[in-house]
Amino acid sequence: MERYVIGVDFGTLSGRSVLVRVADGEEVATSVLDYPHGVIDQKLPDGTVLGVDWALQHPDDYMQVFARTIPEVLKMAGVKPEQVIGVGVDFTACTMLPVKSDGTPLCMTEEFSSVPNAWIKLWKHHAAQDEANKLNAVAEERKEPFLQRYGGKISSEWMIPKIWQTLDEAPEVYKAADRFIEAADWVIWQLTGVEKRNTCTAGYKAIWHKEDSYPSSAFFAALDPRMENITETKLAGDLYPAGTCAGEITPEAASLTTLLPGTAVAVANVDAHVSMPAVGITSAGKMLMIMGTSTCHIVMGNEERNVPGMCGVVEDGIIQGFFGYEAGQSCVGDHFQWFTDNCVPADYMEEAASRGIDIHQLLTEKASLLKTGESGLVALDWWNGNRSVLVDVDLTGMLVGATLSTKPEEIYRALIEATAYGTRIIIDTFHENGVPVEELYAAGGIAEKNPMIMQIYADVTRRSIRISGSPQAPALGSAMFAAVAAGKERGGYDSIMEAAPVMGKVKDIVYTPDAESSTVYEKLYAEYRILHDYFGRGENNVMKRLKEIRKNVKGA
Amino acid sequence: MERYVIGVDFGTLSGRSVLVRVADGEEVATSVLDYPHGVIDQKLPDGTVLGVDWALQHPDDYMQVFARTIPEVLKMAGVKPEQVIGVGVDFTACTMLPVKSDGTPLCMTEEFSSVPNAWIKLWKHHAAQDEANKLNAVAEERKEPFLQRYGGKISSEWMIPKIWQTLDEAPEVYKAADRFIEAADWVIWQLTGVEKRNTCTAGYKAIWHKEDSYPSSAFFAALDPRMENITETKLAGDLYPAGTCAGEITPEAASLTTLLPGTAVAVANVDAHVSMPAVGITSAGKMLMIMGTSTCHIVMGNEERNVPGMCGVVEDGIIQGFFGYEAGQSCVGDHFQWFTDNCVPADYMEEAASRGIDIHQLLTEKASLLKTGESGLVALDWWNGNRSVLVDVDLTGMLVGATLSTKPEEIYRALIEATAYGTRIIIDTFHENGVPVEELYAAGGIAEKNPMIMQIYADVTRRSIRISGSPQAPALGSAMFAAVAAGKERGGYDSIMEAAPVMGKVKDIVYTPDAESSTVYEKLYAEYRILHDYFGRGENNVMKRLKEIRKNVKGA
Repeated sequence: MERYVIGVDFGTLSGRSVLVRVADGEEVATSVLDYPHGVIDQKLPDGTVLGVDWALQHPDDYMQVFARTIPEVLKMAGVKPEQVIGVGVDFTACTMLPVKSDGTPLCMTEEFSSVPNAWIKLWKHHAAQDEANKLNAVAEERKEPFLQRYGGKISSEWMIPKIWQTLDEAPEVYKAADRFIEAADWVIWQLTGVEKRNTCTAGYKAIWHKEDSYPSSAFFAALDPRMENITETKLAGDLYPAGTCAGEITPEAASLTTLLPGTAVAVANVDAHVSMPAVGITSAGKMLMIMGTSTCHIVMGNEERNVPGMCGVVEDGIIQGFFGYEAGQSCVGDHFQWFTDNCVPADYMEEAASRGIDIHQLLTEKASLLKTGESGLVALDWWNGNRSVLVDVDLTGMLVGATLSTKPEEIYRALIEATAYGTRIIIDTFHENGVPVEELYAAGGIAEKNPMIMQIYADVTRRSIRISGSPQAPALGSAMFAAVAAGKERGGYDSIMEAAPVMGKVKDIVYTPDAESSTVYEKLYAEYRILHDYFGRGENNVMKRLKEIRKNVKGA
Repeated sequence: MERYVIGVDFGTLSGRSVLVRVADGEEVATSVLDYPHGVIDQKLPDGTVLGVDWALQHPDDYMQVFARTIPEVLKMAGVKPEQVIGVGVDFTACTMLPVKSDGTPLCMTEEFSSVPNAWIKLWKHHAAQDEANKLNAVAEERKEPFLQRYGGKISSEWMIPKIWQTLDEAPEVYKAADRFIEAADWVIWQLTGVEKRNTCTAGYKAIWHKEDSYPSSAFFAALDPRMENITETKLAGDLYPAGTCAGEITPEAASLTTLLPGTAVAVANVDAHVSMPAVGITSAGKMLMIMGTSTCHIVMGNEERNVPGMCGVVEDGIIQGFFGYEAGQSCVGDHFQWFTDNCVPADYMEEAASRGIDIHQLLTEKASLLKTGESGLVALDWWNGNRSVLVDVDLTGMLVGATLSTKPEEIYRALIEATAYGTRIIIDTFHENGVPVEELYAAGGIAEKNPMIMQIYADVTRRSIRISGSPQAPALGSAMFAAVAAGKERGGYDSIMEAAPVMGKVKDIVYTPDAESSTVYEKLYAEYRILHDYFGRGENNVMKRLKEIRKNVKGA
């Protein structure tokens, strides 16, 4: 009997189930459900109006993903429930909610259904910025050592600011919440009937550390005395690394999903991090870039090091036994899209239309004809601030070298190169701080669709790049961890090290640095670094001052 | 009997005659002739092929302008030749040619008609760059004091490099030439039968100084021993300031132009400089900006000062009794045109088309809605290098402050503002070096057509700006000097001081600085200056290095 596992990937707007063959990682069926309530950013289902920067979700949407996409993939592939040995999920993070001790979301109770803070706060809920700012100030004041692990700053998108916002604005919700929990862990709880939290979200989003645990009660008391004991109460619960079996499908979950009761369920994971084994990475020194509107960089190391400007380092955060490091660039695909939306002349649009190709294709074609260095342009890729290694949202974009003969494709290519230089600085920073980065892997739409961009990245970073063999690496990774949760006895694998070489996939193509182009890029990168430090490290804070002037003028 | 004067303005592609009433400066008729041979930059009329960067003209084209446009304006206005008391001309410069002692252009002789160096080299002939580079090296080596008067550099567009190119490439032409002469002075010679050179072109383009005269024969000998005595031979001849009567229309010129023999002819002038009295300026402290594809800044002072980065200072160069200063920006209208050609999205072009307006109008309309400082952008206006005050063709454009919400009109406005900051630096540099600039005047298409730009210039420079009352200020200025050449006895004026208040014109509108906007621009200008010095004065020569990389790559 052929055995299968299911990976369920919960994204921002939809959830997808992928049915994967255990023997070789073949993705035999995929089903996607758009969340019926989508992103709730205007008003609650009962009409309660939300403030600016709010972004909520509805817990039932996640249940609908289980209920509709799991039966669908089985049906599509003609696979029977008894052939499925495990289920794994990955999720956006930090996406969190307050629940009762039995797992009931407070937003689903009559008492709190009209209270925005009782709902699920999506990762991109940005209304807890005040709390994040206060938290960072207190942590700096107290010289909390955890700040170093997060590039010196805790984001408003993360767990503690989101909880604190609830306490500030809706203390009754805070009080009624037996637990604050990642949605990732909550859906596992719904499948297994037991609360088992994962180390990945706890480490990257809730300031948890394998040895030091959460920040001290003194720190929480300094934020607000009512939060003093939060880690022993509302955040309590053991934490488990990816691949651990969280439990088994309950009879209720079986009737929801048509899977058999007793099917193994893996502890939850984060979409980016779960993709590592999906491209076959199970060792230190190999960095995965998930390239979409922004880029997330993940790499594992054998030791805990403080790397300036990284987003986080978590022991067992990616694969048990390693320190998982994360960094990021805020503006990659978004950057190129801004350019085509705002800066491409009509005759280019016409040419693309008349040839029936996308404008990005046309610009890529024209940019490919340029030699490295021919444009004379260098840009700083900070159109949406800088996440790593400067960790500064107030930085902005810069372009230098324009002349009257500068063409749109030259600017387009310069913006692409700028993101490659940004990645190079991240790599260099890891490398120079004791976290070696020897090879690169890439996943996401840009990596799959644009060979020119990948070649530029190879030339700039002077490293070979392999591309994910699956367009749905997160779901594949979740399925692989499901096979590990099931274990060899049930027909799976005993470790992700075993599963990865069999189920993980990369494309045949490997982008390797071109010697001539790399030599020129080395010179251009040297220019980028000078400008990076000049504008980004305080020598000339013109970007911040211009933002300040802009703010004052717009407010006036 | 109403009296008239004629101003003839020789441009790059055409010549125009304007008939002007002496009593009030009213421009009663205009006639334009496109040069039949235009700019000769591919091959001579006999098919001889030219090298790259060559730009020649045909002397007969200028005669055709006299022959056709002067009779035409008389006819159009119904003015009789006896009512015309004087003729004046202005010309592009340095536009020069080799002639025999009787004024015959060498290119019109059988012997030299196939030799490119025998033809008229137009101002934008750029094939003498090698000679200019060598000249500057020798002058620096010898610490020639004249370099200071020209911002440290003699341009390849000027007289001596163009002559030297002739000597290098066609020594037989050099030998046969009794004179090298500005086309401006040559056309006056054709009208009057006498060679009378003007101080303006000699001072700004041929390194002449009222007290020190031309550079020494030792300097010329250091360039090439064959040039040792050039100033006493091929450049000989007295020099006269604008408004001097060069002579009278000869019988031959009378039959060419239908003017009466004996009509006064003024010494020639340069198009930009002759515009000063046309807007009524006859005193120190008032700067005229001629704003077109590039901008030329002219101002008069009472003393000779060394102003860093100016294009030149010439005693009697503009109006007798003053020191005339010139500075410039290489890229103004060209800059905005580059933007609309390369960076404006299709929907903006469609909106402009559907409303039947120019794209510049649409962008201006949108940019006008922005508050000062709202875009958060600052640019350096060096898309075509920097003429003043850095005098560096290898500088390039820079934009800082872009975000994902930056709109095309914000960039458009930032580029406009950058040119205003560039003008402000020129003004400040004059002002700080003992050449006061109290008020501004502007002429040219941009000045007339775009109130937003002029208001930005007023706010940035913190000075009031008056606009030329005539769209053809150079021709009007030439006509005014013609009235001075004729003198009061013949119905004209005895000095340009007398003529200017009567015949010069500005529009009623005066752009005055807006207090609120000026305050914000003061902050933005401070940022511009920091970036200007950082990129332009050697702190970070990234622009030059990128150009070098570009050159190497393109050559490879």
